[in-house]
Parts: sequence; structure tokens; C-alpha cells
Amino acid sequence: MIFTVLTLFPGIFDSPLRESITKKAVEKGLISFNIANIREYADDAHKTCDDAPYGGGPGMVMKIEPIYRAMAHLEKTMGRPRYILLSPQGRIFDEETAIRYSHIKHLCLVCGRYEGLDERVLDLVDEEVSIGDYVLSGGEIPALVLIDAITRCIPGVLGNEQSSVDESFSRGLLEYPQYTRPDVFMDMEVPPVLLSGNHEEIRKWRRKEALKKTIFKRPDLMNRFTPTDEDRKMIREIMEEMPG
Amino acid sequence: MIFTVLTLFPGIFDSPLRESITKKAVEKGLISFNIANIREYADDAHKTCDDAPYGGGPGMVMKIEPIYRAMAHLEKTMGRPRYILLSPQGRIFDEETAIRYSHIKHLCLVCGRYEGLDERVLDLVDEEVSIGDYVLSGGEIPALVLIDAITRCIPGVLGNEQSSVDESFSRGLLEYPQYTRPDVFMDMEVPPVLLSGNHEEIRKWRRKEALKKTIFKRPDLMNRFTPTDEDRKMIREIMEEMPG
Repeated sequence: MIFTVLTLFPGIFDSPLRESITKKAVEKGLISFNIANIREYADDAHKTCDDAPYGGGPGMVMKIEPIYRAMAHLEKTMGRPRYILLSPQGRIFDEETAIRYSHIKHLCLVCGRYEGLDERVLDLVDEEVSIGDYVLSGGEIPALVLIDAITRCIPGVLGNEQSSVDESFSRGLLEYPQYTRPDVFMDMEVPPVLLSGNHEEIRKWRRKEALKKTIFKRPDLMNRFTPTDEDRKMIREIMEEMPG
Repeated sequence: MIFTVLTLFPGIFDSPLRESITKKAVEKGLISFNIANIREYADDAHKTCDDAPYGGGPGMVMKIEPIYRAMAHLEKTMGRPRYILLSPQGRIFDEETAIRYSHIKHLCLVCGRYEGLDERVLDLVDEEVSIGDYVLSGGEIPALVLIDAITRCIPGVLGNEQSSVDESFSRGLLEYPQYTRPDVFMDMEVPPVLLSGNHEEIRKWRRKEALKKTIFKRPDLMNRFTPTDEDRKMIREIMEEMPG
């Protein structure tokens, strides 16, 4: 899979893509990066990429022309990718979208500066995505979020295929609590059941704790979740165990 | 404001913090960074920071001890910061939280690897935050998201104080469409009202377009939004103008 990134700040991508999961996926030949500087596609001597907004108001607006030219060059040299615009106004990115994008051969992440972007750029892209309801300076850090989330979904990237399956959200519940050595740290103990060696008891405890966490921390996720009969029984127990 | 980051991947932060808004805020003396490598606080020869989960299962779990020692060292040298754990199980980060954090003098962002973190670390931190419902490799890129969003809220960071006020979410609506030169690109034209010079008409057009965008792209935001009388009138017009 190829990730092309169109950005005014290519330097942001230098170090994050050389670490952790993306580094490993590049070494395995599963992904590659093409970081393109939009400024190189500006056609005046000053390499102007923004201008004042029509109709007045504060801030500057990113121009459509350099972005259009960067896309045209990309299509001529590498074919047409799927264009995703990172924007505070896009559909909220989620795990389902990460999985869907992981099947695309060539994804082009277009990073707007969030101060303003000529609205006509929307006509050049296929989808508009936001990573959450907070104001950021631009699409660069959101692009890093997408690259990480999507890369994890590509088969062969994670050493242990099981690992990604067990993680939060992939089953609609938050993950059960994890513990590792030591079994007592300061006065904090590991729940005894995890030291019992009884696999069925451990399985049940983990399932109930995952339900408990989701109910108390993210009740909104329960609306989208289909419980089994065992889950229903555990949910009743959790409710009965609630103080007062 | 001081951002301390506790991480196993300090290298990720090298380039992003040296660009754009964080670079400017550091140069103005408004923020500073202290990126600490948790691995330096492991106490064995192999600098072990993770171990197998109690109770079995795939993946590794980050140990509590190196994190605890990194915190103890931090508190001895710089006093106790407010600890924010980046985690897929935390409360969802939003603009309100960014503003609240921007008033804190010293914030410590604790980056867990999302494969697993000893649950007892939750007892060491003040808050647990997630940037959205997708699986990432760790808290590092979410920490970059928080740093960008929070830095923008610190007075004096943005050149134009108006700019942050006008942006998406700060008023509960998506931002109105922005345009800059040229007024015609390919066959795409700037809406004529923006070239009219009529400030009142421009204000009304922008307000209505902001309402329209929010209604069609993020109807969920309308539930939390309190419309003025003028907004109500515009919303009725938008509904009447809908095709079919």
C-alpha cells in the first residue's frame, strides 16, 4: 500500500514514520510513503500557497491551484489514488473506516491548514475525514493518526494477528484490564483470579470486566453492542453489585 | 506552560514539535517540552518495559515500575504535574478539554502502548483521555494531537486572536465555506455574494452556509447548539430549499 501525503509541512512526517509500527511495515515492504510538498507546486516566485478570503475576515485561505497541480503531477506519475481530505468538517474517522481504507492500494492524504482551505478543493477529493471534535492547526497530525490506524489493519503488519483482534473497539467493548509483573506493586495487587491458572474463570472475569468498563466509561458504546446470553447475565450482576 | 511527555518512543516527537504552531509557541517562550524516555527508568540490564500478561493471552503488557520511577524523578526535579494518560479507553478529547488543559502550568502526557498497559497505572494518573474510536499503536500520536489543540488555546500563540474564535466547533457549528483567488478555477466559481462588498449580505450568507454544512454533515452537533431567532429562520429556509 502506498500513502501519498500532500502537505505544506513535510518536515512534520520525518521522525514519526521512522518509528514503531510504520517503520516495521516499511521494512517488511508492506507500505511505502510519498511525502509531497504542496509549496513546490505554487507557480509564482514567492511560492504563494495562501491568500486573503473573498468576502473579508481574519486568517488566510489555502489556494486551490497548488493542490490541483500537485494532484495532476501525482496522477501523471503514479496513477490516480483515492483522495482523502483531512478536515475539521469531515465524517468522523473510526475503526471501520480504517479497515476500509486498508484495502486501498494508493491513498493520498491531503492536509489542509485548518485556518481555511478554498472550498472548491472538496470537488477534487473523494472523501473528507475528521479525527475528532477539536481544533488543530492542520491535517498533518490527523494524517499520522490515519496512517497508524490503517497500517495496523494491513495483514502481516502486526506480529501477532490475534493482538489486533483483541483490542479495544474491534469487538464493540473496551478491553479488559491487563496486568503484568510484579503481582504486588506498592499496595496494588493483581486480581487473584489472574494468578489462579483456571482458564474458564479468567475468561469469565475478563469478559465481565470488559462489560463493566464499557458500561461505566463509555455507556454510548453499549447502544451499538449486541450482548450474548452470558453478557446479559453479567450485565445484571454488574448492576446488582453497584453501590447504593 | 510545560508539556512533559513520558514515552517509549521519544524519537516520534523530534520533527513534529519543530514545525508550525508548536515551533512558534516555543520561540515566543509560551510553551516548552520535556520528552522523557520511560526505558531509562527500567532497572534491569535489558531495560525491560513490558512483560507477558497475567492470566495469559497474546501481546505484551507495559510494566508499571518504569512509569512509576519516571514520575517520581519528574516530581523530584520539577514538582508534580497534572498527569494525563493517553488511552483508547479514556474520555473522548474535545475542544472544551483542550481549553481546560491550556490553563494548567505543567501537563504530563503519559503514552501507553495500546497493546496493553498494566491497569494499575490508572491509579497514578489524574485523567485518562482518548482522541477517538480507532485503534492506534500507542499514545504518542494522540499526545501530538493534544499538544497541538492545547497550544492553540494558549493566549498569544495565534497571531490573530480572532482566528481561533471563528474556527469550527468554537461556536458549535462547522465553519462557513472559505474561498480565495482565483474567482474562477477550471469551471468552479466563487459565490458572487462574496465579491459583492455587501458586508451584511456576506455575514448572512456565511451564517446560513455554516448552518447548512452542520445540518447536512454533522447533524449530531445541532443537538448541542442553541440557535438565535435569525438561525431559526435560516434553518426553515434550508429545509424548504431541500430538493424533493
